[in-house]
Amino acid sequence: MEAIVRALLPIWAKPGLEGRLPEWLDVDWWESVEQLLELAPTAQIGWFDMHAKPPALEAIAKAQKLEWLCSGYAGVDWMPLDDLAARGVSLTCGAGLAANQVAEFAVMAMLAQRRGYREIVRAQDRHEWLQVPPTTVEMTGTRALVLGFGAIGQTMARMLAGFGVECVPVRSRAGEGVLGPDEWRAQLGDFDWVVLTLPSTPETNDMFGADELAAMKTDAVLVNYGRAEVVDQDALVTALEGKAIGGAILDVTLPEPLPPEHKLWTLENAHITMHLCGIPNDASRQRAIDRFLANCERFRAGQALEAQVDLARGY
Amino acid sequence: MEAIVRALLPIWAKPGLEGRLPEWLDVDWWESVEQLLELAPTAQIGWFDMHAKPPALEAIAKAQKLEWLCSGYAGVDWMPLDDLAARGVSLTCGAGLAANQVAEFAVMAMLAQRRGYREIVRAQDRHEWLQVPPTTVEMTGTRALVLGFGAIGQTMARMLAGFGVECVPVRSRAGEGVLGPDEWRAQLGDFDWVVLTLPSTPETNDMFGADELAAMKTDAVLVNYGRAEVVDQDALVTALEGKAIGGAILDVTLPEPLPPEHKLWTLENAHITMHLCGIPNDASRQRAIDRFLANCERFRAGQALEAQVDLARGY
Repeated sequence: MEAIVRALLPIWAKPGLEGRLPEWLDVDWWESVEQLLELAPTAQIGWFDMHAKPPALEAIAKAQKLEWLCSGYAGVDWMPLDDLAARGVSLTCGAGLAANQVAEFAVMAMLAQRRGYREIVRAQDRHEWLQVPPTTVEMTGTRALVLGFGAIGQTMARMLAGFGVECVPVRSRAGEGVLGPDEWRAQLGDFDWVVLTLPSTPETNDMFGADELAAMKTDAVLVNYGRAEVVDQDALVTALEGKAIGGAILDVTLPEPLPPEHKLWTLENAHITMHLCGIPNDASRQRAIDRFLANCERFRAGQALEAQVDLARGY
Repeated sequence: MEAIVRALLPIWAKPGLEGRLPEWLDVDWWESVEQLLELAPTAQIGWFDMHAKPPALEAIAKAQKLEWLCSGYAGVDWMPLDDLAARGVSLTCGAGLAANQVAEFAVMAMLAQRRGYREIVRAQDRHEWLQVPPTTVEMTGTRALVLGFGAIGQTMARMLAGFGVECVPVRSRAGEGVLGPDEWRAQLGDFDWVVLTLPSTPETNDMFGADELAAMKTDAVLVNYGRAEVVDQDALVTALEGKAIGGAILDVTLPEPLPPEHKLWTLENAHITMHLCGIPNDASRQRAIDRFLANCERFRAGQALEAQVDLARGY
């Protein structure tokens, strides 16, 4: 008889998992924070994702038998990565699960910025027929530098190609049509968009600051659909206030939620999309469930897991 | 010596045309309505486009020597086509000149509708960080029926393909992957979008009415970037009020501008973009100038002109 492994999984995943789980799993389902914290100490496999991070972190601390921590989130910078590494816990993340959703949302926001859609929304709310468009510029023919060319960046590039937008990716290694980490700064002035889809790591934090903003074209737009920590937000606010760049489209900010009195809300060239880009939907939840099941087989076989986080790199 | 032909052209085109005009043209430039109406009777070639249509129509009536009337507008339904035909005047239009601009704008509006961008704009204006997205549905996987598959429809299809949206075109003749005029009505219930980019002609006017709206899926969206006359607008308002369809994105309405008290402004599922999609910009004006010059050669050689309107069909 195979040894039983104890798993603690979220109740929302039960309908998608029931009947598909391997026999060697003994599953508890958690619905409340209380259940999660009570059952965490027994879990060898845990899926503790919560919108509120402190209880999830408390559960991770309590789960001292944990061997594999599964998350549906693409960004895991909020987790105790060093602690997990020291305890020998494998961590899998949601990288790629919501990439299409995020990329769609980011490209929509870029189009809306370029064509002045916000002014049109406001005019409709006033019942006013605009006689003059907010702008007549086109998307086509613009160029985008894409820092972080994972699933989101690649999907955005495919979508933007349909509009005749050239995307130049930046990756940790340069290559054919790909800029390396030491090459992109010198070329910042050649782009109409700088798109960030980077994780938050010690290397990426604050990498985009006053110098990089100053090197951008004065009508170029910074687009951040990765992590707010990557940008020096004070420097960005200064650049936006002084119209040193054309604008910023920010799904991520410091802090989140942005308090009502924050200056970013009031800047007409700041477009805040409130970290709404990748909220799970039925399709992404199904993909998360499918990945969990595939990883159960890999876990049992002692293989590397899909979307396993390099705990030293942080993504 | 070649015979001289008299042309009356708009002053805005002068910088782009000077030095490039053929020697056989004797050009007057009009800047005001008064100049236009004074000089119109002498013109053999005329370019009389004005945002306000009555003076342009008066100029056409006065230009009894006219042989070729050039317009930068894609839609020429406002012109006296029968009169031009009776007088033997050739008419060229702006079909395709702004297609990219219009297609970009239409796809932007579709993405914004799908992802609830309007709610995000309003929330930012309130300095409110939305915790829950207006919607989590995606663009990808939806299907669009595209009635009118000229330059705009084709460009939209290319852009939408990048999002994984399948576009099924309707043309006057059916073919491989193309529905004919008698086929599309039976399939209306299979689409998430019905995109209209049709000219206004006796055949197209009111072709999309209560029956067609009733055949759409209840969450499908009607997108009109062609001519308002194609849709029975009263039936559309009724469908939107009763939520019989998911929504409408309307660049064109009856009348234009839509008066402030019109019901369409107040319907939350109506998205009005105020005929702003194809306002000329530098690029489209340059293309109009290039087309005019190419057509000068064709005119002189007695050839068919580029973008020449079939005066009987009306486009």
